[in-house]
Amino acid sequence: MHALSKQVLEKEPRAVARVLRLIDDRTPPFSDILRDLFPHTGKAYVVGVTGNPGAGKSTLSDRLIEVYRKQGKTVGVIAVDPTSPFSGGAILGDRIRMQRHAEDPGVFIRSVATRGHLGGLSRSARDMVRVLDAYGADVVLVETVGVGQDELEITRTAHSTLVVVAPGMGDEVQAIKAGILECADVFAVNKADREGVDGTVRDLELMIALGSEAMVAAGKRRGHVVHGGASAGASAGAGAGAGASAGWTPPILRCVSTRGEGIAAIVEGLERHKAWLEGSEAGRARRRARLAEEVRDGLREALVEAAVHELGPRIEEAVRKVDAREVDPYTATEELVAAFRAGQVKPS
Amino acid sequence: MHALSKQVLEKEPRAVARVLRLIDDRTPPFSDILRDLFPHTGKAYVVGVTGNPGAGKSTLSDRLIEVYRKQGKTVGVIAVDPTSPFSGGAILGDRIRMQRHAEDPGVFIRSVATRGHLGGLSRSARDMVRVLDAYGADVVLVETVGVGQDELEITRTAHSTLVVVAPGMGDEVQAIKAGILECADVFAVNKADREGVDGTVRDLELMIALGSEAMVAAGKRRGHVVHGGASAGASAGAGAGAGASAGWTPPILRCVSTRGEGIAAIVEGLERHKAWLEGSEAGRARRRARLAEEVRDGLREALVEAAVHELGPRIEEAVRKVDAREVDPYTATEELVAAFRAGQVKPS
Repeated sequence: MHALSKQVLEKEPRAVARVLRLIDDRTPPFSDILRDLFPHTGKAYVVGVTGNPGAGKSTLSDRLIEVYRKQGKTVGVIAVDPTSPFSGGAILGDRIRMQRHAEDPGVFIRSVATRGHLGGLSRSARDMVRVLDAYGADVVLVETVGVGQDELEITRTAHSTLVVVAPGMGDEVQAIKAGILECADVFAVNKADREGVDGTVRDLELMIALGSEAMVAAGKRRGHVVHGGASAGASAGAGAGAGASAGWTPPILRCVSTRGEGIAAIVEGLERHKAWLEGSEAGRARRRARLAEEVRDGLREALVEAAVHELGPRIEEAVRKVDAREVDPYTATEELVAAFRAGQVKPS
Repeated sequence: MHALSKQVLEKEPRAVARVLRLIDDRTPPFSDILRDLFPHTGKAYVVGVTGNPGAGKSTLSDRLIEVYRKQGKTVGVIAVDPTSPFSGGAILGDRIRMQRHAEDPGVFIRSVATRGHLGGLSRSARDMVRVLDAYGADVVLVETVGVGQDELEITRTAHSTLVVVAPGMGDEVQAIKAGILECADVFAVNKADREGVDGTVRDLELMIALGSEAMVAAGKRRGHVVHGGASAGASAGAGAGAGASAGWTPPILRCVSTRGEGIAAIVEGLERHKAWLEGSEAGRARRRARLAEEVRDGLREALVEAAVHELGPRIEEAVRKVDAREVDPYTATEELVAAFRAGQVKPS
């Protein structure tokens, strides 16, 4: 066992920080450490926290930490910032709100910036969650900045996803609704003392109702596509319904994070979702599906990494040939795959 | 050569429609046809059209078609709808605006819905562009619905990307700015007869100015990361600056698409960008970089497809073992990669 792995298991916070940095940079011996730690994982409850910027995710996370700490639970936080250089400042400001827990040894907070590609980010988040799990965190919060497709993917590393919405930000429910039903397990309507909160709650209720219908309709349309010949107009919609339509309807819970109101009910809503995941066939199926997804994602990334590493100069050569129209890109790709499989190339 | 390939080269529109459908569904013999057609491609000028919903992309595309047709050029349009089931209707409505060209044999319009994963969508878009190129389109417009990360990726299949913005939609420049500088080659400020247009233009100018500075700053921060130890707070920003900082500053051009005003200037702005791509070292480097990206993307997808196809039951077995904690996911993945490379598995 690697010395760092041992230190993580001995609850040495500086070792955790170092391991998370290694994972962020994909620097050896990060994978050896992950292997060491894996048998010690599986105990933490992982909550994804997502929602539009300005909805109050950080303040709510801060309050969640407070409630969990009062329950005697240790908490880890991974804050994922898929930022462009433009917005860096504002988001670092957000993070600071949670820093009052920085002195508490039962809380471990870590910010991670996006590095390169998306798949890499959700993989890193998943690995970092495992480290905090092995370190002994009872709860791990994975907080993302927005609710784009990218962030939705990161929340798939969580057991439960909390979507934070606030009234008075215009069309926020409209703006987030694409994909949200597949991802939300609990809705927190934050800033519930503001005007417009009833409208926001109604919008969410309507969205859940319409969403289920729309998904049924999409299913029918898909059916039509299969039997009646492909139609470019038909929407995919596959994979939808992890929430409402599969036996779990996301509760809509009001809170005022700045005053700490309604937070206990959110923790309770999450606990109910956790119980559903563990106790129902649908919940267990979802857990297995996510694990399968991880193995497939890992396979994809490992293959590509190995191929790019080993094929390096051959890829450049293929690009030159395609550019010169000596070969088409489809044939070029096939030849690269064949070379990789046949091991005609040596690691450089 | 496949019969359908021949028909496409003989400018048979029904054959084109059929081939595009095969590509959309990844159904054989789509790849044979792509191989047949590739030597006949490389002539079309490909323009990505993107921007927030409501900015008037379809109306502007319609006007662009008009200008190009008056120049005697043939035009192909691929409209990509990465829609959730919720918004399908509205977007199909949008498409109808371009249908007045449906009777013109010099115009070919095709809508494509998102199927499954994102990488697949930009690959499909790229392949469809090639078909329209081989069919003889002088200009191909690739129009996307929004400006999320997904859509940005699709615009990378284009030579030039036109970003459409309209005033009076609130924070639209704020909303789209993440990633936009890397992607925009020309800005069209549509609905320029509306109040607030000067503010929108100023916002864009400021964004371009700030963006260049922010990118320089990000570069410095990256430098710091390399020399002073990794810092999770630093933003990536890699790959930025395909626009402004690499010798091309995106022009900001006003138009009123509904009245056809300012469209000629946009076509001219695009022509200037095309000339820059062809005539400057930076432009040629960008073209080569995109081609390299395509070959790498293709390699990635081909590898994953082959592996998932051949490893099928072994993947399920690995998932079961990880679930039972008999093996960690990292070792499981490695074993799958090794099995794939060693050809220990037969195509099912």
